[in-house]
Amino acid sequence: MKKRLRNHGVEIGTLPTGPGNRITDVAGVLVGHATCDESPHQTGVTVVIPGVRNPFTEKYTAAVYVINGFGKSQGLVQIEELGALETPIALTNTLNVGRVHDALVTYMLQRCDQDGISPVSINPVVCECNDSRLNRIQDRVVSEAHVQKAIETASIDFDEGSVGAGRGTTAFGLKGGIGSASRVIRFDEKPYTLGVLVQSNHGCREDLMINGQKIPLLSSEKATAEVDQGSIIIIVATDLPVSDRQLKRIIKRVGVGLARTGSYLGHGSGEIAVGFSTANPVHHHSSSDFMQVTMINENQIDRVFRAVVEATEEAVLNSMITATPVAAGKEKPLCLSEVLGELNWPDS
Amino acid sequence: MKKRLRNHGVEIGTLPTGPGNRITDVAGVLVGHATCDESPHQTGVTVVIPGVRNPFTEKYTAAVYVINGFGKSQGLVQIEELGALETPIALTNTLNVGRVHDALVTYMLQRCDQDGISPVSINPVVCECNDSRLNRIQDRVVSEAHVQKAIETASIDFDEGSVGAGRGTTAFGLKGGIGSASRVIRFDEKPYTLGVLVQSNHGCREDLMINGQKIPLLSSEKATAEVDQGSIIIIVATDLPVSDRQLKRIIKRVGVGLARTGSYLGHGSGEIAVGFSTANPVHHHSSSDFMQVTMINENQIDRVFRAVVEATEEAVLNSMITATPVAAGKEKPLCLSEVLGELNWPDS
Amino acid sequence: MKKRLRNHGVEIGTLPTGPGNRITDVAGVLVGHATCDESPHQTGVTVVIPGVRNPFTEKYTAAVYVINGFGKSQGLVQIEELGALETPIALTNTLNVGRVHDALVTYMLQRCDQDGISPVSINPVVCECNDSRLNRIQDRVVSEAHVQKAIETASIDFDEGSVGAGRGTTAFGLKGGIGSASRVIRFDEKPYTLGVLVQSNHGCREDLMINGQKIPLLSSEKATAEVDQGSIIIIVATDLPVSDRQLKRIIKRVGVGLARTGSYLGHGSGEIAVGFSTANPVHHHSSSDFMQVTMINENQIDRVFRAVVEATEEAVLNSMITATPVAAGKEKPLCLSEVLGELNWPDS
Amino acid sequence: MKKRLRNHGVEIGTLPTGPGNRITDVAGVLVGHATCDESPHQTGVTVVIPGVRNPFTEKYTAAVYVINGFGKSQGLVQIEELGALETPIALTNTLNVGRVHDALVTYMLQRCDQDGISPVSINPVVCECNDSRLNRIQDRVVSEAHVQKAIETASIDFDEGSVGAGRGTTAFGLKGGIGSASRVIRFDEKPYTLGVLVQSNHGCREDLMINGQKIPLLSSEKATAEVDQGSIIIIVATDLPVSDRQLKRIIKRVGVGLARTGSYLGHGSGEIAVGFSTANPVHHHSSSDFMQVTMINENQIDRVFRAVVEATEEAVLNSMITATPVAAGKEKPLCLSEVLGELNWPDS
Repeated sequence: MKKRLRNHGVEIGTLPTGPGNRITDVAGVLVGHATCDESPHQTGVTVVIPGVRNPFTEKYTAAVYVINGFGKSQGLVQIEELGALETPIALTNTLNVGRVHDALVTYMLQRCDQDGISPVSINPVVCECNDSRLNRIQDRVVSEAHVQKAIETASIDFDEGSVGAGRGTTAFGLKGGIGSASRVIRFDEKPYTLGVLVQSNHGCREDLMINGQKIPLLSSEKATAEVDQGSIIIIVATDLPVSDRQLKRIIKRVGVGLARTGSYLGHGSGEIAVGFSTANPVHHHSSSDFMQVTMINENQIDRVFRAVVEATEEAVLNSMITATPVAAGKEKPLCLSEVLGELNWPDS
Repeated sequence: MKKRLRNHGVEIGTLPTGPGNRITDVAGVLVGHATCDESPHQTGVTVVIPGVRNPFTEKYTAAVYVINGFGKSQGLVQIEELGALETPIALTNTLNVGRVHDALVTYMLQRCDQDGISPVSINPVVCECNDSRLNRIQDRVVSEAHVQKAIETASIDFDEGSVGAGRGTTAFGLKGGIGSASRVIRFDEKPYTLGVLVQSNHGCREDLMINGQKIPLLSSEKATAEVDQGSIIIIVATDLPVSDRQLKRIIKRVGVGLARTGSYLGHGSGEIAVGFSTANPVHHHSSSDFMQVTMINENQIDRVFRAVVEATEEAVLNSMITATPVAAGKEKPLCLSEVLGELNWPDS
Repeated sequence: MKKRLRNHGVEIGTLPTGPGNRITDVAGVLVGHATCDESPHQTGVTVVIPGVRNPFTEKYTAAVYVINGFGKSQGLVQIEELGALETPIALTNTLNVGRVHDALVTYMLQRCDQDGISPVSINPVVCECNDSRLNRIQDRVVSEAHVQKAIETASIDFDEGSVGAGRGTTAFGLKGGIGSASRVIRFDEKPYTLGVLVQSNHGCREDLMINGQKIPLLSSEKATAEVDQGSIIIIVATDLPVSDRQLKRIIKRVGVGLARTGSYLGHGSGEIAVGFSTANPVHHHSSSDFMQVTMINENQIDRVFRAVVEATEEAVLNSMITATPVAAGKEKPLCLSEVLGELNWPDS
Repeated sequence: MKKRLRNHGVEIGTLPTGPGNRITDVAGVLVGHATCDESPHQTGVTVVIPGVRNPFTEKYTAAVYVINGFGKSQGLVQIEELGALETPIALTNTLNVGRVHDALVTYMLQRCDQDGISPVSINPVVCECNDSRLNRIQDRVVSEAHVQKAIETASIDFDEGSVGAGRGTTAFGLKGGIGSASRVIRFDEKPYTLGVLVQSNHGCREDLMINGQKIPLLSSEKATAEVDQGSIIIIVATDLPVSDRQLKRIIKRVGVGLARTGSYLGHGSGEIAVGFSTANPVHHHSSSDFMQVTMINENQIDRVFRAVVEATEEAVLNSMITATPVAAGKEKPLCLSEVLGELNWPDS
């Protein structure tokens, strides 16, 4: 079992976590990976399945927030217009988005065929980071089979670190990857869960902070470039009933969590947040002219803001602290766990 | 009684109108004017009251859409963020927005005081057109008293043309003003009303169209500048239950109505749409953590798009066809009714 | 040679056209098609090449405007962030965007390889309409070979109507397709060209207008559904030096042109405008910290607004009037030229 | 002389500051205050004058970024559309924006009259925070005279803390106010300055951090509400030549600076950033059809991101650390300098 941030004795924020402290604490959400790790290819795909229902026929209330649009994520425009998600969300590498997009079309056609419907318009959501430091990205090795495998093997109990779409990423000059965290908040005295999953690939080594504390360079570490060339994808899931506008306000706060890890939201690539709620399904084939939805009282939204900020900060750190070494040619970024071990942190 | 477009035998579109074919067909909506017409001041204020309830304590679901942001309208940012309107909407001239804004604060403090509350934060919505061709705008003669009067005299049965905030405006080189129209659409077999009110101050004479037909220049008319220097404010009201996102999609279609009158959405000044629904009130002081709202099935939204397009086109034409002459110095724009009379239109 | 709108004696607007009255009047712009027309597949790809230079190394100033985001177009987010286009623009069918995206990656890698560079991040722009009425869209038959062919055969003198990405589209209940038009405007006494290309797939038959005149249904025509289920892609090219903000303001006016053809910008699918200028190249590998750009004086932008409105209206009508019959099973939409012939229009 | 953060030995970030470490390090920028401090009124106005030239005739390239739109700031819509600032920027209290807006109209009419021009359309920019905890805000005591005084007394060497628009604000449960900082960055080997000025009125006491370190509550301090009800206005000035799009990307990063002080960008009120560059003036009356502008190479923008992040974080802390006690009735928030003194921070 990989050690996560809390196994190092570090807690981010004050809100309680869900039972697994990960995005799958939101009931119905599953995460699956397919990893490509044969040199020179270190890459993969990670899929977030928003719930048990067919997302096309009973869509998920959703929102996107573009922190930095220097990226190739797909499917955002329709979510912005309609406030609904109708496929699983796939994460992969920058040049593979077209193939993964096509694979999600295939998957959704199959899934809908089982339900007896035959859609002619599908909006796959594919997000990406550029893993070309460790992966020969131009080969676009993530295929339809990988996407199918990630979906089929998706589970509550998923791996973090150098797996799936996080296989080849680097963050703060160290090894990046997939990380997750969750928080529980109460509305009308009932618990609701908000979970975050990130694909981390951003930040400058000198800027890295854990819980407000800078992590100094080892004597063996070279100073990295001063430029933050990376990107980060942040997926936010919740079972709290919210409107798409409220959800957009919520996911807009992921930037606070990123900032607290030392990021300044660099120019280099896309920083994109996608959020969805499992409440308030939007029926594709509805015979009614109206639908009823439940929103939160906007005056109570601050506790959700706090939850997403804390979970984002912790998910980024989990993505790094669980990452295991990946080498490609002469490139072999250090892992955060190695750095912290050397520093004897947090006890130093 | 002023002749409106339909009194000339011209019908726009195919949907039925409300009983008065104006924005006040939406139950609860009232419109009031205060007009300044002592030379050199030809200006005023028009107020749209969204309904009988105190808009601060029970806010209206609302949306804004900025067609052309070259304008000074106020209060839009908060509506964009929160999807709610909490004051009447005032229209006036460009340089008077500050004073009218302040007058709305005064009014809302009084109104809330009567209800036993004392707000410290109020978001007045003030929109504007530049009427400086006919009005010595720098004097900012619209005062708190005018705003109070417009509110106090607001009624279902309001005047159109060269009144209130339309006193000094010009549209398509002719006299502009205040105009309105409405449409009735059915959801779940029940009728719902959508009404539009405009303050027209835009367009080039050569471009003017009625129902697709260009209105030729009289031999006595000089060609105007080829540049559309004006602006137009479009207020959309409905009793249909919609979300703020749906409402934004709806009011985004006002541009289609404008285009059909010959506008090309010129650079010159602000073209702003503000919409609100009288359904789904948002309670300022709510003890509940949740609220229930009703939305329309998005697949049925096209009939609302059609309604807003038709009502906008007709409201613009009503604003012009009901306008009466206003002179300021050497400036005395023709009125559309004069032009049509001369042309013996629509019978020509 | 297909008859275009002007061959029927109809002129839209007042500005002069370019020599070919099409997007390729903008120097350097080329358009190519690959058409799939073996039943049950009636679809294809159309590529707009923005100019002779490698778009990756010397990017084009660009802007996007989402009229209706119910669509799957790709690459918009990065243009919005950076104001630059770095690949040709491909148009295809809704479910084929992933494969066409991937084909553009392949093409750009080849193109860049010839120039001795090896990009690891590329932002292909792929737009789409849903042609499933005439095309078995789920098969996604548009392949890399089609994209390559469209690029290789791209020329100034390209076909319109039922070709390329317009092969299977329908507009206003009739056959849609690819159409184009251009306008010439003068700045500092020199001519500049603005060209538009559309893929038309939108509108209700009863709403269709040419030059403000409704086109009545033939007695043989059934009334279509009252709902506008289509979409339209509008590509705008110009050699005028503009900033990305100015360009966004310009392409925002395409909606006026669409409205004048009878569209009310229906809910059904994506209506997306993408614009680029061949002036002000953005160098990918620049050693300088600064770049000089030329913008137009904003006070002179109205003539560009007028140009894009006129060219859009005419391009839509050209796409329909040049369309030739395409049948799929029992579906065989009438062509506008057939309807106009029957009506003896415009002479009726 | 008030002690600022650096006088306490604390440095934020790594970039060098300007000579005064404040917004007026940008050549031409001046700041003036008028303070109302007669009980029960603790409020005022702060004016940022962007430079020596008449801002109406030679406008400033500008951008706005709405972090949280729950606010009443005025003039943002036009900046978003046109990318230009044409008046000084005034900060005041929430209910006073109308009167201050009107006062800026008066000022600009006078200023332009001196230059022989007579504008009929002016877009004043007025931002605000809600100081009602310490100020009887409903009286709107900030008058035209205060605005005139703030403008007339504006200087390079301005006061921070509980002055002007910061007189009545509270931040992180302590006394807020006006604060500033600056950074110097190099392009083409020449120094350019970026300065920030904030009006702080946001945050929860328990969240306050300085340089990553939480500031614990004194034993005498009560825990405040867990909700961040405040707002913050952030003005960014630079002499670096940038486009409005680049400027918007730059000011979007102020949220990172806010996050590092402990804010999670709460629901309560408006968090608004306005930025301008003194380079690239936009001439209101230009006879040319074109204008030349200088932009930075986008690949070099990261250093500007870093500058704005650092300066924002430090400006917030300066606004608090320089604040002096203000009491109103039973309300008398502690000052940060008192808390730090008690804690013997940073030496504790």
